[in-house]
Amino acid sequence: MAPVLALVGATGAVGTVMIDIINARESVPWGEIRLIASARSAGKKITVRGEELTVVALSPEAFDGVDIAMFDVPDEISAEWAPIAAERGAVAVDNSGAFRMDDDVPLVVPEVNADKVAERPRGIISNPNCTTLSMMAALGALHHEFGLRELVVASYQAVSGAGKEGVDQLYAELSAVAGKEVGVRAGDVRDAITAAGVSIEDSPFPAPLALNVVPSAGSYKGDGWYSEELKVRNESRKILGIPDLKVSATCVRVPVVTTHSLAVHATFEREVTVEEAHKVFAAQPSLVLQDDPANGVFPTPADVVGEEPTYVGRVRQALDFPNTLDFFVCGDNLRKGAALNTYEIAEKLAPEFS
Amino acid sequence: MAPVLALVGATGAVGTVMIDIINARESVPWGEIRLIASARSAGKKITVRGEELTVVALSPEAFDGVDIAMFDVPDEISAEWAPIAAERGAVAVDNSGAFRMDDDVPLVVPEVNADKVAERPRGIISNPNCTTLSMMAALGALHHEFGLRELVVASYQAVSGAGKEGVDQLYAELSAVAGKEVGVRAGDVRDAITAAGVSIEDSPFPAPLALNVVPSAGSYKGDGWYSEELKVRNESRKILGIPDLKVSATCVRVPVVTTHSLAVHATFEREVTVEEAHKVFAAQPSLVLQDDPANGVFPTPADVVGEEPTYVGRVRQALDFPNTLDFFVCGDNLRKGAALNTYEIAEKLAPEFS
Repeated sequence: MAPVLALVGATGAVGTVMIDIINARESVPWGEIRLIASARSAGKKITVRGEELTVVALSPEAFDGVDIAMFDVPDEISAEWAPIAAERGAVAVDNSGAFRMDDDVPLVVPEVNADKVAERPRGIISNPNCTTLSMMAALGALHHEFGLRELVVASYQAVSGAGKEGVDQLYAELSAVAGKEVGVRAGDVRDAITAAGVSIEDSPFPAPLALNVVPSAGSYKGDGWYSEELKVRNESRKILGIPDLKVSATCVRVPVVTTHSLAVHATFEREVTVEEAHKVFAAQPSLVLQDDPANGVFPTPADVVGEEPTYVGRVRQALDFPNTLDFFVCGDNLRKGAALNTYEIAEKLAPEFS
Repeated sequence: MAPVLALVGATGAVGTVMIDIINARESVPWGEIRLIASARSAGKKITVRGEELTVVALSPEAFDGVDIAMFDVPDEISAEWAPIAAERGAVAVDNSGAFRMDDDVPLVVPEVNADKVAERPRGIISNPNCTTLSMMAALGALHHEFGLRELVVASYQAVSGAGKEGVDQLYAELSAVAGKEVGVRAGDVRDAITAAGVSIEDSPFPAPLALNVVPSAGSYKGDGWYSEELKVRNESRKILGIPDLKVSATCVRVPVVTTHSLAVHATFEREVTVEEAHKVFAAQPSLVLQDDPANGVFPTPADVVGEEPTYVGRVRQALDFPNTLDFFVCGDNLRKGAALNTYEIAEKLAPEFS
C-alpha cells in the first residue's frame, strides 16, 4: 500500500509552499495525504493533486494510520506533538528547531547524509535551519571530495525567515519610504516609517529593514552570539559529520522577501581549483552553477526565489589562504531551506512504507 | 598666512558632502577656499562658511597659489589633473583610485598612518576606497595593540558608492516595487521594475537592487575577483603596513542608500578578549561602540548615515578560530569613506602651510 503522508501546519507559510511542491510533482509516492493544522484552521478546504482536502485539527488521533508526518510549525508545537506522532507509529519529519541538536534525532539533508534517515531511535528526523541549509548541498558536495576543515560565513537573510509577519513588515516599510529621499540622514528611514503609521516597535525585527540591513537573526545566546549564528555552526558540524569543523558566522537580515544568500569562505584539506569546484557543483543535481563574473553572471536572490535548486556563483580561490575557496550561494529559504528539504526527507522514507 | 584650500569636483556628490563637512566645522585652518569643477559647472554659486563662492573651471591656472587641492572626481580626471596641481605647487589629496597603489603616493587614514603624509615624492596623497575605509579605523586600532594577521570580510555596500546615478536607480526601483507582492517568484522584481518603465539595462548595477542583493562591485579583474574585493585586500595591506596580510573579501551591493557595512573576521598575533577590543575601540575618537546585543543594540546603516564616526558592534571572539574576533562595522561611505577622510588628510597638512 502507498504510504500515508500527513502535513502538520498545512495552512502556514511553509505548509503552503509544501502543498505547492507536492502539486508541482509529476508523480508522488503517497496514498492518502492528510492536512493537519490548529483547531482554528480545521475545516478549511485545500486542493492537493486536484483533490479537495479538508484540514483536520491537530490531535493524537489525527496521526492514526499516518506513516510519515511532516511538521512545519513553531518549536513549541513540534516539541509537544512530534513525539505524539511518533508514539502513534508515524515517522515525524520536523522542520522546527526543537530536536535538531538531539543526539537521538538525525539532522538530514538528503544530498549529504540521506543514510541517516534510518537512525531514528525517537522516530523523529530533523530538518536543518534555513540558513544552514542554503549552503549544505554545495558544502556537502565539496566536503565529500576535498575534506572541509574551516568555514567563515556571512549571510544576507530574507525577511520571510521570520514568517509572514516579517514579509508584511518589509512590504509596509517599503511602501512607507518609497518616493521619499530617505536613507541620507541618521534615523530618517525610521521617521518615514513611523510617519506612515507603520510600527517599528511591533516589528519582528529589532530595526527597520527598508533601506537597511540588520546584523541580528534569532535570539541572543550570550558571548556576543545570536542563535542563528550558533545554528549555522552546530548544524553544519552535525550534518556534515565533522564534529571539530571550525565555523564563524555573521547573520544579517536584508530587505529581500525570500531566498537567503551566503558569502562562504571554506578551507579544505587540500588545494581545490575553481575548475574542480565547478565540476563537483555541476555533478550535483540540486545545484545550479551560475558563474561567469566576466559577463556579470552570478546568482542573486530575486532571480532564484521560487526555485528548488541552490544557485552557486562567484567561485574563486582565496588569494592568501591556502586550500580555500570563496563563493556565493542563493537558496530559497522556504523551499530548499524548509519545505523542500522536509519533503525530500519524506520521499527518502517512502519506500520503507510502500 | 593661512593655507589656501582647493576643492576639485565641488559640485559632485562627494564634493557636496565635503562642503557640508567644512560648513559644519567650528573652526577651519584655511584662508581662501577655492571651488573648482568642470567648465559646465563654472560660475555656479555655492555658500561656504557663510560666504558665497563662485565655482571656477578646472585649468592649470586654477591651482596657482593653492597649497592643498582635494580631488573628488573620477579616476581619469584625477590621473590627468592631480599631477598638474602638484606641478603648480599644491599637494593633491586624491579620493580617486588613480594613485592608491602607486609606491610613490602614500595611502592615508589619519587615525592609522598620519605620519605618511610627509612622504609624498609626487606631491600626491591618496584617500582609500570607501569599503576599505569603513573598517580601517577599527582595524588600525586593533592592529596597533594586537598585530593583525588575517582578514575575511563580507560587505553590505550602499548604492551611493556608485554615485548619484546609483541612488536614483535604487529610488526608482523601490517606487516600482512598492505596494506590490513581489520577491516571491524568480524574476518578478525585474518584471515590476520594467513594467514601471525603469530600465535595468541602463542601471549602474548588473541586477536589480530593490528587494535584492548583488554580489558584484567594481569591474571584473579575472580569476573570479571584482575590483572592489582586490582594493580591500591591497589597500588594507598598504594602509596598515602589513605587506603579507592575508585578506579575502566578498563585496555585495545591498539596497541601502548610503553607509557601507562590513562583517569582519580578523585574526591577530595573540588572543584578544571582547573587553580588550571594547577598550581599544572606546579609546579611538573616530569610533562609536554600539555593542549590547542582549538588548538589541548594534549599528545599522540607516542609523549611522550622515555621521562622521565609524560605528562598531557585534564584537565577539570566534568560537573555533584562535586569536580571532568577529565584528560588524557601519561607516558613511560618502563621509569617512570619502569626503571626511580626504578632509582630515588636508587638515593634517595644514600646519605645513600656516
